[in-house]
Amino acid sequence: MAALPALLAAVSLLSALQLGFFARRVGMSRMKHSVMPPATNGPPEFERTFRAHQNCLEFYPLFQVVLWTAGVFFNEAIAVVFGLAYLFGRHMYFFGYQRATKERLPGFYLCVVLLLTLTGLGAAGILNRILDEYFDIDLPKKIFRW
Amino acid sequence: MAALPALLAAVSLLSALQLGFFARRVGMSRMKHSVMPPATNGPPEFERTFRAHQNCLEFYPLFQVVLWTAGVFFNEAIAVVFGLAYLFGRHMYFFGYQRATKERLPGFYLCVVLLLTLTGLGAAGILNRILDEYFDIDLPKKIFRW
Amino acid sequence: MAALPALLAAVSLLSALQLGFFARRVGMSRMKHSVMPPATNGPPEFERTFRAHQNCLEFYPLFQVVLWTAGVFFNEAIAVVFGLAYLFGRHMYFFGYQRATKERLPGFYLCVVLLLTLTGLGAAGILNRILDEYFDIDLPKKIFRW
Repeated sequence: MAALPALLAAVSLLSALQLGFFARRVGMSRMKHSVMPPATNGPPEFERTFRAHQNCLEFYPLFQVVLWTAGVFFNEAIAVVFGLAYLFGRHMYFFGYQRATKERLPGFYLCVVLLLTLTGLGAAGILNRILDEYFDIDLPKKIFRW
Repeated sequence: MAALPALLAAVSLLSALQLGFFARRVGMSRMKHSVMPPATNGPPEFERTFRAHQNCLEFYPLFQVVLWTAGVFFNEAIAVVFGLAYLFGRHMYFFGYQRATKERLPGFYLCVVLLLTLTGLGAAGILNRILDEYFDIDLPKKIFRW
Repeated sequence: MAALPALLAAVSLLSALQLGFFARRVGMSRMKHSVMPPATNGPPEFERTFRAHQNCLEFYPLFQVVLWTAGVFFNEAIAVVFGLAYLFGRHMYFFGYQRATKERLPGFYLCVVLLLTLTGLGAAGILNRILDEYFDIDLPKKIFRW
């Protein structure tokens, strides 16, 4: 079978479990505030919980793309560390948002910084690979004179 | 080119077609009930159809992650069978929800059970790979004395 | 590390950046029209911007699946060209929708045609691979007598 990197897959699986966990919290908030599907409007606490989950979902495929790009084309261990930090940021974000709209911000900023970092690492890795594969230029060697 | 498993990719492609099919049903429901974009509120039947589609979308990246993790790190054929069962569950869910809010539940529970199963298989496969790769421990051999 | 195709990954990364860019435009629209989270209702321009972003998000995992399927199982270069055209279509769609509901349509139709094309290419590639791998039938040879 394709030799996909196990540690990246472990982070992806953990992140999927986290999303499932958040989905369950939305379900519990529906019960608590008697907001029956398909309604998505209700008391402020429910709406904050619902939107917190939605925001996590909106960023999820994005996160997967930059995690795997950075992990495959730059460095698996670094991507794993930043990926786990992102899950921590999402945890802060979700429970912060559930408490108060303003408290979503620290976790959110952490997540954005991590996503941008992973994007940068992935872009560097891909650029390096493309230069190497299609133009036969070994960038790290040129820069660091390894 | 990378030797990605063809049967898993076939399930992914089928699931993408299913989502496209659901998106079209939402469009048809918009027409039928004269709910023009960007509105997402309307008669109960439209709102149920809209939320059914949203729920399928919310779980889609999650499904992809656990399908591929189980398929790559555990067993492709088993993941394909559970993946196809998941598509069947989503079909039940979508058309059940469109008829009545309560009728979404059988399909939904089937999908949740399948997602958890795929997650468990994927986690077992990854754990086994990590133990083997980083700690040189062959778990199946230890357990089953193969 | 797994030899994932660098050009496909570059398109995925670009598409992730585009989604981030759209998310920022929604944030700016929130500011401009004073629609504070978690609210998602507001003046028509905000609602159009919000829904435009949502629609891009809804199709994003779908796009990733058909892009990679077509790129891995059919042809990387062709998938990359159609993938970049899709990003252009999403650009037209987003800014068209922000201006007026009707102006979302040209970009949307372009995107749907591209998604269906990528789906067709991916399905052809997977079918070919499955016939070759499991039934030992070389379809292109049979058809074109190569």
